[in-house]
Amino acid sequence: MAGNRFGTIFTVTTFGESHGPACGAVVEGCPAGVSLDREILIRELRRRRPRGAGGTGGAGGGDPLGASTARAEEDDPEILSGVFGGKTLGTPIAILVRNRDHHSSDYDELRDLYRPGHADWTWEAKYAFRDHRGGGRSSGRETLGRVAGGAVAKAFLAAACPALEIRAWPSAIAGIPVPGPEDAGFDWEEAGRNPLAVPHREAAAEILALIERLRKEGDSAGGVVSCRVTGLPPGLGEPVFDKLDGRIAAAMVSIGAVKGVELGAGFAAARGRGSSHNDGILPGEAAPPLPGIPSLAFRTNHAGGVLGGISTGAPLEFRTAFKPVPSIAKPQRTLDRHGSPRDLIIRGRHDVCIVPRAVPVVEAMTALVLADLLLLNRCARL
Amino acid sequence: MAGNRFGTIFTVTTFGESHGPACGAVVEGCPAGVSLDREILIRELRRRRPRGAGGTGGAGGGDPLGASTARAEEDDPEILSGVFGGKTLGTPIAILVRNRDHHSSDYDELRDLYRPGHADWTWEAKYAFRDHRGGGRSSGRETLGRVAGGAVAKAFLAAACPALEIRAWPSAIAGIPVPGPEDAGFDWEEAGRNPLAVPHREAAAEILALIERLRKEGDSAGGVVSCRVTGLPPGLGEPVFDKLDGRIAAAMVSIGAVKGVELGAGFAAARGRGSSHNDGILPGEAAPPLPGIPSLAFRTNHAGGVLGGISTGAPLEFRTAFKPVPSIAKPQRTLDRHGSPRDLIIRGRHDVCIVPRAVPVVEAMTALVLADLLLLNRCARL
Amino acid sequence: MAGNRFGTIFTVTTFGESHGPACGAVVEGCPAGVSLDREILIRELRRRRPRGAGGTGGAGGGDPLGASTARAEEDDPEILSGVFGGKTLGTPIAILVRNRDHHSSDYDELRDLYRPGHADWTWEAKYAFRDHRGGGRSSGRETLGRVAGGAVAKAFLAAACPALEIRAWPSAIAGIPVPGPEDAGFDWEEAGRNPLAVPHREAAAEILALIERLRKEGDSAGGVVSCRVTGLPPGLGEPVFDKLDGRIAAAMVSIGAVKGVELGAGFAAARGRGSSHNDGILPGEAAPPLPGIPSLAFRTNHAGGVLGGISTGAPLEFRTAFKPVPSIAKPQRTLDRHGSPRDLIIRGRHDVCIVPRAVPVVEAMTALVLADLLLLNRCARL
Amino acid sequence: MAGNRFGTIFTVTTFGESHGPACGAVVEGCPAGVSLDREILIRELRRRRPRGAGGTGGAGGGDPLGASTARAEEDDPEILSGVFGGKTLGTPIAILVRNRDHHSSDYDELRDLYRPGHADWTWEAKYAFRDHRGGGRSSGRETLGRVAGGAVAKAFLAAACPALEIRAWPSAIAGIPVPGPEDAGFDWEEAGRNPLAVPHREAAAEILALIERLRKEGDSAGGVVSCRVTGLPPGLGEPVFDKLDGRIAAAMVSIGAVKGVELGAGFAAARGRGSSHNDGILPGEAAPPLPGIPSLAFRTNHAGGVLGGISTGAPLEFRTAFKPVPSIAKPQRTLDRHGSPRDLIIRGRHDVCIVPRAVPVVEAMTALVLADLLLLNRCARL
Repeated sequence: MAGNRFGTIFTVTTFGESHGPACGAVVEGCPAGVSLDREILIRELRRRRPRGAGGTGGAGGGDPLGASTARAEEDDPEILSGVFGGKTLGTPIAILVRNRDHHSSDYDELRDLYRPGHADWTWEAKYAFRDHRGGGRSSGRETLGRVAGGAVAKAFLAAACPALEIRAWPSAIAGIPVPGPEDAGFDWEEAGRNPLAVPHREAAAEILALIERLRKEGDSAGGVVSCRVTGLPPGLGEPVFDKLDGRIAAAMVSIGAVKGVELGAGFAAARGRGSSHNDGILPGEAAPPLPGIPSLAFRTNHAGGVLGGISTGAPLEFRTAFKPVPSIAKPQRTLDRHGSPRDLIIRGRHDVCIVPRAVPVVEAMTALVLADLLLLNRCARL
Repeated sequence: MAGNRFGTIFTVTTFGESHGPACGAVVEGCPAGVSLDREILIRELRRRRPRGAGGTGGAGGGDPLGASTARAEEDDPEILSGVFGGKTLGTPIAILVRNRDHHSSDYDELRDLYRPGHADWTWEAKYAFRDHRGGGRSSGRETLGRVAGGAVAKAFLAAACPALEIRAWPSAIAGIPVPGPEDAGFDWEEAGRNPLAVPHREAAAEILALIERLRKEGDSAGGVVSCRVTGLPPGLGEPVFDKLDGRIAAAMVSIGAVKGVELGAGFAAARGRGSSHNDGILPGEAAPPLPGIPSLAFRTNHAGGVLGGISTGAPLEFRTAFKPVPSIAKPQRTLDRHGSPRDLIIRGRHDVCIVPRAVPVVEAMTALVLADLLLLNRCARL
Repeated sequence: MAGNRFGTIFTVTTFGESHGPACGAVVEGCPAGVSLDREILIRELRRRRPRGAGGTGGAGGGDPLGASTARAEEDDPEILSGVFGGKTLGTPIAILVRNRDHHSSDYDELRDLYRPGHADWTWEAKYAFRDHRGGGRSSGRETLGRVAGGAVAKAFLAAACPALEIRAWPSAIAGIPVPGPEDAGFDWEEAGRNPLAVPHREAAAEILALIERLRKEGDSAGGVVSCRVTGLPPGLGEPVFDKLDGRIAAAMVSIGAVKGVELGAGFAAARGRGSSHNDGILPGEAAPPLPGIPSLAFRTNHAGGVLGGISTGAPLEFRTAFKPVPSIAKPQRTLDRHGSPRDLIIRGRHDVCIVPRAVPVVEAMTALVLADLLLLNRCARL
Repeated sequence: MAGNRFGTIFTVTTFGESHGPACGAVVEGCPAGVSLDREILIRELRRRRPRGAGGTGGAGGGDPLGASTARAEEDDPEILSGVFGGKTLGTPIAILVRNRDHHSSDYDELRDLYRPGHADWTWEAKYAFRDHRGGGRSSGRETLGRVAGGAVAKAFLAAACPALEIRAWPSAIAGIPVPGPEDAGFDWEEAGRNPLAVPHREAAAEILALIERLRKEGDSAGGVVSCRVTGLPPGLGEPVFDKLDGRIAAAMVSIGAVKGVELGAGFAAARGRGSSHNDGILPGEAAPPLPGIPSLAFRTNHAGGVLGGISTGAPLEFRTAFKPVPSIAKPQRTLDRHGSPRDLIIRGRHDVCIVPRAVPVVEAMTALVLADLLLLNRCARL
């Protein structure tokens, strides 16, 4: 079935319910000979864990984002197949992460209730039947398989395309913008120091204060993740239905809670003029040079690194909007399975904002898109 | 190859270069027994033609949007297969539209130049070789196959899901917003009366004046197309990689010139709070009733009709941003095939703004998404 | 939908009913830069026409196989897209062949009857609705799209893999075996001289006499097509569900009238011993040499050129069994649409044996398999 | 990538190397609401184990077929996802079986040798790199994922199509034919009593004696598995590239060691006449009756239950030929990695004949084909 697999040649299939035995992924189409081990997976999976509660952030003493969906134990990936002697075999790479430490009984009172902003009711409308514990397969825990698959894609890209670098970061949280890479105070190192993964110290502090206030109010927030890919070779993307930007959009909106995506100038492009939007073409330098055609550069990058769905060699730039976490502590009105109105109070501590944990998911999905398009591009010419 | 086919069960494959012999589509997976004829195709194809120049707009005397890419003759679709006695057979429906009246020699001077904002150079970077005439397959003319395919999808949806209605409209052009369906002065009928397909008389007049000014300046503009689908049954969408919203995003960003897409509250959701974004759940009414679960309604529709990637039954709402037309009459700097800087002046009249002609393309892609998900949904339950 | 498309990267989608406006194919995934023109298509399409009636056989005076399904006019392919200046663009190649000279009224009396050995009833059981004229899409005329697609695949293979040669021939007709390439009297030239495409003069004469007798009796015959591919590079085939031999089997049994396929030693292997079936391994010579591994050769080729689903470099060898043509002039008992028993006499002249015309179809499908696996193989290694 | 996934809607993806950590499968597209538990998997997996060594056959004291590839411990499947409260959720069903008790060091001396009849060399020719232990992914152990996937397919079919029954059996081993279901002495119960799974006592005894002799000689044998499916509804199969018989052929030849497949009359059809091959049509009875068309029956079943690629409702009948096991104890000549000739003696006890253990694999692949086509058929009509 379509729904659980992403990609054409380099593909990931994710599996697992939030409170079932395990989550994981099967990665197919990774070429043979790529260096891969458990450590690579652990490193990426750790990035999607809440900071503080065993995550990379050193704050200690609990997660300031308020996540209890986070499990106390670290995710422990196992490579079941496809790797031998530290190298990929060209066969499917199955990756398993056990679901531990889950408190399924926390969800007993939600069994017959439809939570606003969640997929509880739509899931029943579709399948008649669902695993109500922790959102089942609609849980954010499903992204674990994506991040594992993305780690394999990154390992392949690192070998096949060493100059390529994928960097995502929260560019706005709860309405507070984070200055960008060209702005004063932006600092990649800082992203590793605060629990928000925000690469700007002052912005991080301001946002943390707001998050803390929201946590006390029992409310939640959304935000925007920006992503920039540099070192991308020209020529990636398959017109017309598998364009690079089309695939990125599909990848982003497949992530839960995403409500929008912008490529390059995005919605601002819709307000501009051709004379200002068009990126002027200049002589460029490509290493290695492109056979038969001149290298070129662009005066600006409103296109976001894509023309006609094919990479230009300029940085790929896009932004993804995440809605506020739907699980809030404030009372909400809803219905139960029998159609009776009910007051709902969601107990337990939940993420106030998912955006920091979405950063590695955005990167993983981007890596999966690029790995696939890189392979497809091998088939473009005689 | 991935690139030219959209969908899983109900699919469209488009083919054709702008100035080659023909454009068209092969639609597969349309169930047998759907009423279909040439008139249905003609009606939809006419909507993507420029108004004035033989289009549905009655302005006469030339297209105020300034399009010369429009051909003088009407597109003349032929159904080559898959239909017998006015009904679909369940076999592939091949649709052919000849490319007539094209002035390929107009493009002779562009043979060795890379136009800013176009795919000329990226196409060569990928394939080493291109049809330079009119953008080849990167031309807007490729959307003809999409609109033809969408017409088949609409015919299927009309039979399978009679309450369903797909309506798209320009909600902003060149930075001027168009009031929405809930605002004063909004009028679907008006969309058929002005050459912009704008459903609001005053907004249309204001935009037309601006477009005229841009045309004189040799400049161009972008805009936003909004789309609303009502009467959608709950349950459509395949988690997690073929969610309804994910498929819509993939469909939209596959259209040339698109730089962004928003679902429901879109980027505004990223600035909101959970308590205000969550759509409260109320008792609802579904006809026919859903077996085993209560019908429900939503106090608001920030979700845009999708939760967990599955339709809620509320209207599906999304917006798509189009960049300004890249072919402008103003001089631009670029390179030629030998890497030498050149001044480029694009001759001939081109669309100042593609947005009005994009409206039926947005609808067509939406219909294709829904037809496919409707069929996939037949496989969701025992 | 799955049913009309073959392949993963290099794919063909066929369309068209026997007596509809046209038949054809869309070929996707052919790399850019392959030389292709109409003449290449005409040459292959001519091979699937009956000999005598305008075919390549020079017998004149009508087709000794008795075919009236053959149309008097030659098939006239048109390339609608994907080729510019005699080279492929990397875009979909749509190929159209009009259906001319068809006598649809010949089928009026069959409208409500189910012909034994045909798909009339199963088609209605599936779709409730069919085009009864000439078998609709279940007609042998559908193979026209396959042969056109195969011609493109052959053009690609000729450029990418010049040593590769695909040769099919009838190795048995109506129970009379044709001596093989290693036997006395076998002569590839002879295949072009007799209307049976049989590469052996005496066998051809014996079979022709039998066919003539069957024609007078109003009966029909089946046969076997053998195929040998030489010059195949090692490494083609994707374990485990897209093995080279698995794909060949899928390709062959997708052809109408096929009832079996054997690879290498085939069913005889099931009766043999490991000690005699295993092909002994000898030092070999590969040009170019394989990096890191020795070249090898095989003492025998019971494997038919495939081990573990991957080509060995030895000739790919397989045989395909075709049932007798189901349209016979002898009276048959059947039912009509109302369930009443009826006597059926099929009028008009039909092929007595389809095997000679199946030869180019077997080659075409083989070329499509190999083109696709050749491209997929580009993605096997880092 | 294509290679590891089978099906369109109801799909199985297998993973795992013979001596890696685990083998398994991910089943996608199984509708929600199907009863499934571990016991169902265990039952099917047990059938592919050698008889005697913990298998269902009660012979005790070791496996008369001589298998040491069989592991001493029983396969222990774990359902990782997709099932909740004993019912499928509509989400991916990941199934894991650990590889235990493997003696990887047995393969140390084979590390640099290419075994005749095995995929050792072709694997290196393709991927440059392989897991040499036990054949890696080319091992028969890969079929474990198929059998697990087939068990899910059977569970779905049992619920959706209760009258359907799939039965496979060895119809010839080592050249000794087994009388068929219509012959005297055929007894399904007997298949459970002898270690060959042969449903005929005298044939089983004769074959066992021959197998014993081959074992002593250090030789091996092949055979034929027949399969009959009854209770199949008419209408299954997607013309033209996903015909029921085409899919069956693809499924069968995807199994390792298969060299041929026949549908219905098979190669005998190629020697017959239309007048004798055509299955006469008679009035039939279908429960439930088919709307709008008469039920019919067939005087014979040379078609093997398929016409035009669509099921007729008559039993689906086919035969699959397996080559002799390539691992034999007799000395063989081969090359090592450096291209030097070497004498090879394969140590350890290997299966003399794989055919009895292939029976559940044939059934599993058949179930997977039918489950997929049953779902696709839901999309055939308006």
